[in-house]
Amino acid sequence: MNGAQALLHTLADAGIDVCFTNPGTSEMHFVAALDDEPRMRAVLALFEGVATGAADGYARMAGKPAATLLHLGCGLGNGLANLHNARKGKVPVLNIVGDHATHHVQYDAQLQSDIETVARNVSPWVRTSQSTAALSQDAAEAITQCMGPPGNVATLILPADVSWGEGGVPQTMPPKAPPSAADDAVVAAVAHALQGPGNKAFLLGDRALRAETLMVLGRIAARTGAKLFAEVFPTRIERGAGLPHVERIAYLAELASVQLTGIDHLILVDAKAPVSFFAYPGKKSYLVPEGCQLHELASPTQDVASCLAKLCSAVDASQTAPVLQSAKRPSRPRGKFTADKVCKAIGHLLPDNAILVDEAQTSGIMLPMFTAGAPRHDVLTLTGGAIGQGLPNAVGAAIACPDRKVIALAGDGSAMYTLQALWTMAREKLDIISIIFNNRAYAILNVELRRVGAAGAGDKARAQLDLKHPPLDFVALSEGMGVRARRATTTEEFLAAFEHALRTPGPHLIEAIVPPTLAGLKLRILPSLLESLANLPRPVARALKKKIAP
Amino acid sequence: MNGAQALLHTLADAGIDVCFTNPGTSEMHFVAALDDEPRMRAVLALFEGVATGAADGYARMAGKPAATLLHLGCGLGNGLANLHNARKGKVPVLNIVGDHATHHVQYDAQLQSDIETVARNVSPWVRTSQSTAALSQDAAEAITQCMGPPGNVATLILPADVSWGEGGVPQTMPPKAPPSAADDAVVAAVAHALQGPGNKAFLLGDRALRAETLMVLGRIAARTGAKLFAEVFPTRIERGAGLPHVERIAYLAELASVQLTGIDHLILVDAKAPVSFFAYPGKKSYLVPEGCQLHELASPTQDVASCLAKLCSAVDASQTAPVLQSAKRPSRPRGKFTADKVCKAIGHLLPDNAILVDEAQTSGIMLPMFTAGAPRHDVLTLTGGAIGQGLPNAVGAAIACPDRKVIALAGDGSAMYTLQALWTMAREKLDIISIIFNNRAYAILNVELRRVGAAGAGDKARAQLDLKHPPLDFVALSEGMGVRARRATTTEEFLAAFEHALRTPGPHLIEAIVPPTLAGLKLRILPSLLESLANLPRPVARALKKKIAP
Repeated sequence: MNGAQALLHTLADAGIDVCFTNPGTSEMHFVAALDDEPRMRAVLALFEGVATGAADGYARMAGKPAATLLHLGCGLGNGLANLHNARKGKVPVLNIVGDHATHHVQYDAQLQSDIETVARNVSPWVRTSQSTAALSQDAAEAITQCMGPPGNVATLILPADVSWGEGGVPQTMPPKAPPSAADDAVVAAVAHALQGPGNKAFLLGDRALRAETLMVLGRIAARTGAKLFAEVFPTRIERGAGLPHVERIAYLAELASVQLTGIDHLILVDAKAPVSFFAYPGKKSYLVPEGCQLHELASPTQDVASCLAKLCSAVDASQTAPVLQSAKRPSRPRGKFTADKVCKAIGHLLPDNAILVDEAQTSGIMLPMFTAGAPRHDVLTLTGGAIGQGLPNAVGAAIACPDRKVIALAGDGSAMYTLQALWTMAREKLDIISIIFNNRAYAILNVELRRVGAAGAGDKARAQLDLKHPPLDFVALSEGMGVRARRATTTEEFLAAFEHALRTPGPHLIEAIVPPTLAGLKLRILPSLLESLANLPRPVARALKKKIAP
Repeated sequence: MNGAQALLHTLADAGIDVCFTNPGTSEMHFVAALDDEPRMRAVLALFEGVATGAADGYARMAGKPAATLLHLGCGLGNGLANLHNARKGKVPVLNIVGDHATHHVQYDAQLQSDIETVARNVSPWVRTSQSTAALSQDAAEAITQCMGPPGNVATLILPADVSWGEGGVPQTMPPKAPPSAADDAVVAAVAHALQGPGNKAFLLGDRALRAETLMVLGRIAARTGAKLFAEVFPTRIERGAGLPHVERIAYLAELASVQLTGIDHLILVDAKAPVSFFAYPGKKSYLVPEGCQLHELASPTQDVASCLAKLCSAVDASQTAPVLQSAKRPSRPRGKFTADKVCKAIGHLLPDNAILVDEAQTSGIMLPMFTAGAPRHDVLTLTGGAIGQGLPNAVGAAIACPDRKVIALAGDGSAMYTLQALWTMAREKLDIISIIFNNRAYAILNVELRRVGAAGAGDKARAQLDLKHPPLDFVALSEGMGVRARRATTTEEFLAAFEHALRTPGPHLIEAIVPPTLAGLKLRILPSLLESLANLPRPVARALKKKIAP
């Protein structure tokens, strides 16, 4: 048995049975060994960023890692942005990166580069396996490291001769160490705060946003009056009718500050203290209000469920009925076609148990409101801010959950980073509806250009944010990769295309030609925008109006 | 004047007047400052790999660096593969990578990552600028570092507050240090070897492959009987009728070994000793024949022209007439459509002073033969082996040389890594003909799978190399990005499309539907393949036949 065969056996024994691949010559023995391991499914991508983003989306939904197969430092580089998203989302991903044979490294051949240095940007655990005999043990350690909690990226570098050498020995995984237990003193302190005066809120990340933990949080919230917030970009959030409603912190720090205004106790559960996405001249980065006390109930290494169970008992909420989101859908959209109408149509038609992958930036701003009372669904978001995540994440989610409809929303700018994902959707016949908001701009940057105070931008600057010349034709691009596509320029066309895609299994793309949602946005009119956002009730919007446009 | 304005002024003063961009929020002040610096041309790409590959292609043709503008660690990651190609090709590229404001770093916001660690993979010089006052000085140092020789990648990381801060001061460049002079003892030793017994050959890289140096080498070769070889993947080679003919070392180590068989003295000029691209079980990586003496006439830090001039005098070749390639074109191709017919058509029709960007892998194997006697042209190749170089390189070459026709050849697999380059071609109305060889396979990997000895590959393995399901439609993909496209399934259709593109300025794409060139290749039939290759004369092929299939 050669190294590659033993490695594949070890992966499959550990339950890792999907590998997203974009191989080259140095990975050919791994590729050849695929036929010896019937448990492993290999999914080819035309670009490494698709493979890594798919592994991220897969793990978010499957609750276990997939492997990637990448070609030396450059292949890893191409996959780096979506590995960054996985790292920031605490998502387990196991990279297998082929390298030159150990005796070839000294010659500094064309593809030679320092792979480990690239890997360290995204991968706390990096190892170049040194021998066929040790390979499977290295793999077992990589798997342990990536499983967490917190989930993480682990990178095993596989020299070609270690892969092709004979003497591979499959390894079984050591028993998994349990996550750190709840800290009783912390639980008591949080319970005390929740039962005392002032306004309390939870800020929830990753594992706190699953149905089971949310039900416990719902009881605690109902009992104590605490509010439930989710991180700006959650890894995965279960939501919809029948679950407690959770309000996501807004991307715009101006709005997030308003959401958090008046909070006296902010309790973190598998989440970090809120900070603004970027820094802006003269504005605060750290968004915890002055005087607000921060508590960390459960850190990313801890057992979130047991921390919450203890807290639930401590505040005597075990018998409290949680406030649950009622079933409620928006009406069928009509009239002028905008990005909001797309979001409304999704809310109107969202099927049971769907997976929404949201990378729509400005165009998706109304999605949370319109889907709040839709049938129960999962949402995956842009955890690390590295765009090009949406379509690859959808690939992985669809492979993890073949019986669920996946709906991926992406802006035109975002979609173009990893559009090759469409080919894998077609090849694997994945049940994904990709909706591309084509507003022919990096619309978010038109907002940001003003927010950073870069006033007086002229034609050259504005041209850098403009995707009008030439216009992208996503129907042609999609069909060029084998995915059926339709263009919608009216609300009725969109509804027809979406309904068709919903009832026809397999991959579809809908190009929604819409005006930029925030194109005319000026900071002084933010409050009127705010008032239309469900996440922010009217009193909050009024408070913001006073603050920003006194 | 803020930091960004001073930086742009410094770049323009240093002659860097093109910037290939894919900006985000942290780069917005740089973007805004573009309008204050009329000398700077900003070229937007939809993906960072296009921006970095364009900067590479630009510098190869312009002989000076362009800047890139990238968005934090993830943007740099997306651009890494083509920066690797630049590094391996000794091509100067100046990266400007935006980062969070210095005071924002502590919060580890979503896009925070260690940019320097990624940069070090491709960039010997990396610096995070610490203040607006020092920024232009940092930029000047970065420019000095990247200019070389050897040319290199330099990465200047630009925190947002260093960019937006007031107090920027443009800097002028310090005087450029001359490259190291020729070493007279080395020149004498090489001259002695050239004048002595045995077979001699030069192995030429980068700066040795330009018209002027080639003419000197032609004299030396004519005088001494030395052969002229070029590296496998030269950065830029000037060739065609009226220049000395140079034979490129073959990609397949089996062929390269034959090319080098019997050489007693191998003289390196701005080149490295030949090694195989990958290692293969039981095969040699180092390709210098046993007993062959290696000489380094000019290292990458030295003045190539003066080393060659001294050698020319030393061997008394100054008055020797070089053997020049005669003008000779292949006839108009007819009959069954194959990749070879495309290469033949290019040789038949190549216009004066064209730039060929060759990333066609297996399909381009006959290109050197069919264009050897064509009008003088430049060829840019895959210096670092990181595919996805061709179309972006073409963008940069066309911007550097707006009066020259650029013809880019890419395999279907390669083209899909950075296909977004087409959009920039359309946007900038670049005079580029992109020819995509669509053989619906990673054809080179079908060869490699056998070469690495990964025998017995089954259906799953072979599926990893197969791009048939679904077939890519490059006409649709191209038109989706605004580039006119035609599909050729016959030789006549290709000729018509190519002739149309040659006489119609602006970007074109031709999708050539061809069978895989080396699909049926088995190692034992290599010699018969060899005999059809112009680079390898019949005696060489016969020698190989004896060696491989005795």
